Amino acid sequence: MKEIKTIEFKEDALYLIDQRKLPVSYEIFECRTYKDVYYAIKEMVVRGAPAIGATAAYGVVLAAKEFIDGEKKEFLSNMKKALSFLNESRPTAVNLMWAIERMNNLIERNRDLSVEDIYMKLKEEADRILKEDIETNKRIGEIGNQIVGQKATILTHCNTGALATAGFGTALGVIREAFYSGKDIFVYADETRPRLQGGRLTAWELVQEGIPAKLIADSVAATLIRDKKVDLILVGADRIALNGDTANKIGTFMLSVLAKEYNVPFYIVAPTSTIDFSIETGDEIVIEERDSKEVTHIENIRIAPEGIDVYNPAFDVTPNENITGIITEKGIIKPPFRDNIIKLK
Amino acid sequence: MKEIKTIEFKEDALYLIDQRKLPVSYEIFECRTYKDVYYAIKEMVVRGAPAIGATAAYGVVLAAKEFIDGEKKEFLSNMKKALSFLNESRPTAVNLMWAIERMNNLIERNRDLSVEDIYMKLKEEADRILKEDIETNKRIGEIGNQIVGQKATILTHCNTGALATAGFGTALGVIREAFYSGKDIFVYADETRPRLQGGRLTAWELVQEGIPAKLIADSVAATLIRDKKVDLILVGADRIALNGDTANKIGTFMLSVLAKEYNVPFYIVAPTSTIDFSIETGDEIVIEERDSKEVTHIENIRIAPEGIDVYNPAFDVTPNENITGIITEKGIIKPPFRDNIIKLK
Repeated sequence: MKEIKTIEFKEDALYLIDQRKLPVSYEIFECRTYKDVYYAIKEMVVRGAPAIGATAAYGVVLAAKEFIDGEKKEFLSNMKKALSFLNESRPTAVNLMWAIERMNNLIERNRDLSVEDIYMKLKEEADRILKEDIETNKRIGEIGNQIVGQKATILTHCNTGALATAGFGTALGVIREAFYSGKDIFVYADETRPRLQGGRLTAWELVQEGIPAKLIADSVAATLIRDKKVDLILVGADRIALNGDTANKIGTFMLSVLAKEYNVPFYIVAPTSTIDFSIETGDEIVIEERDSKEVTHIENIRIAPEGIDVYNPAFDVTPNENITGIITEKGIIKPPFRDNIIKLK
Repeated sequence: MKEIKTIEFKEDALYLIDQRKLPVSYEIFECRTYKDVYYAIKEMVVRGAPAIGATAAYGVVLAAKEFIDGEKKEFLSNMKKALSFLNESRPTAVNLMWAIERMNNLIERNRDLSVEDIYMKLKEEADRILKEDIETNKRIGEIGNQIVGQKATILTHCNTGALATAGFGTALGVIREAFYSGKDIFVYADETRPRLQGGRLTAWELVQEGIPAKLIADSVAATLIRDKKVDLILVGADRIALNGDTANKIGTFMLSVLAKEYNVPFYIVAPTSTIDFSIETGDEIVIEERDSKEVTHIENIRIAPEGIDVYNPAFDVTPNENITGIITEKGIIKPPFRDNIIKLK
């Protein structure tokens, strides 16, 4: 298995694989300040809900480093601003808020320590988040693999691999685990317009691993599903409501409708940190709308006429009734989702 | 209304708007031989079922011009080969075969005339096909407009406008007619991966005409349909079977499933020349698979990794049960489709 270092912290800097450049070039994006981290999340140098969480945690560490020479009071006040700034980098993925809150709680619990000691604690916590995410993904992979047949064609959307997480992946992690456990796996990867995370990133990971796969335009999935060419659909999540409604990359909802219509199992694969226990249903999830240029341009080349308006939501919400199960590190959550999700709180 | 001269024949040459170059540049592609015409259809300089039909007819005219100095027997034999060659340029749209057959029948009926006279007849017939297509489209527009409300948001896929026909358009023709008849029309145009006919061509036509519209990634349609933000879906057709099953641009089938699930009227808009009376169902329609480069590259820029396989069907088949009606120049065909289609033969 190839090791892909999506997120690496060393010598007071955060190094991210620049996912805007893949698959054509492999470049490392260096963050020296928490504002660099904000930029990296907002501009999607790094993306994928769990990866955003871990990156934001290191953003907090870089902020602490930046303010380490100040008085305690000043430090705490600066940190508060920095945390709130980082929290605004993207609105939909809950893992961002989850990681920021975890770092904030740590500060609160240790506010009597020296600034240097708080910094050390924060660094340890970020390392722990990164390490836990990889372990969580591996556990998700093992659990998810239980529902994958010995010979299976799996459709996936967007990128939920090592690049979307601290490593290994969620939905793509299950595919990895199934492949390396010796199963006869074939993958259809949706290219996932407009940002093409499937075509750029998932395809890249699949090629790296040598997992047999074909890339398709998003609208091709429909006939594959109808014609029983797909045994299983595995997708990630950016936020899961208490009732199981799931926000994920635009296009997920469409797949869920087709899966339901043609009786193909449709699973969400995500760590429990993606569950937002504070919201009852998907109606409460804010859907990020992104720049129209994502649709009208590719690599700064215009592919749509000047003057055309664009509607470019980055996510959609799949209602719980379209979901077969939610694969987490704590097991597979099945309906009734609310009852089974609340138990995990 | 803007006049868009998609196809123009003058002084022994066929001039096509090079649709591969829109919307960034407006260039005219000149065909001096029937082999140029073959290339233009195959490489999608011109596309759209009715436009392909009219273009192929002029391809036959150019072939006749090329062979005009030969003996009758030689001329007829050369024409037979040229017709069969042109017929192979693309496999799915029936209008190509329909136009070629119409030109062939004309040759057969006039084989006693001189080569020059046959050439003249062919030229007149191609002009007639072009003229008829525009008239047919205008009639389709009027008929289709009857089902469009005074205020309507219409979703459309691919390009079915002036660029896809000899002029005016089919599904986009209905939208044009509705708009110019004073209705309050708003259009959502799917970008239509991989060739982006929606983003490149439909968006261009909509901007030219000043019709209020937004461009969306294909997978965005699902939430718009669910959330009742679309009153009506209008799409074109490349081939319609006797039972109403319809081959159209990849992505159409997906829309039809969503339309059915959420009770949004879903209409096919096409001239009756798109009906293939020789096939009972959509199962008999050959689906063209195109070059993987359409998915892995945009404008020669690589957007997917080397080594990834691609599945790139250009069309899909929408089953008749997902279709509300088929808007043609002879009226709106409603279920039971087979009974109502057979009457048109």
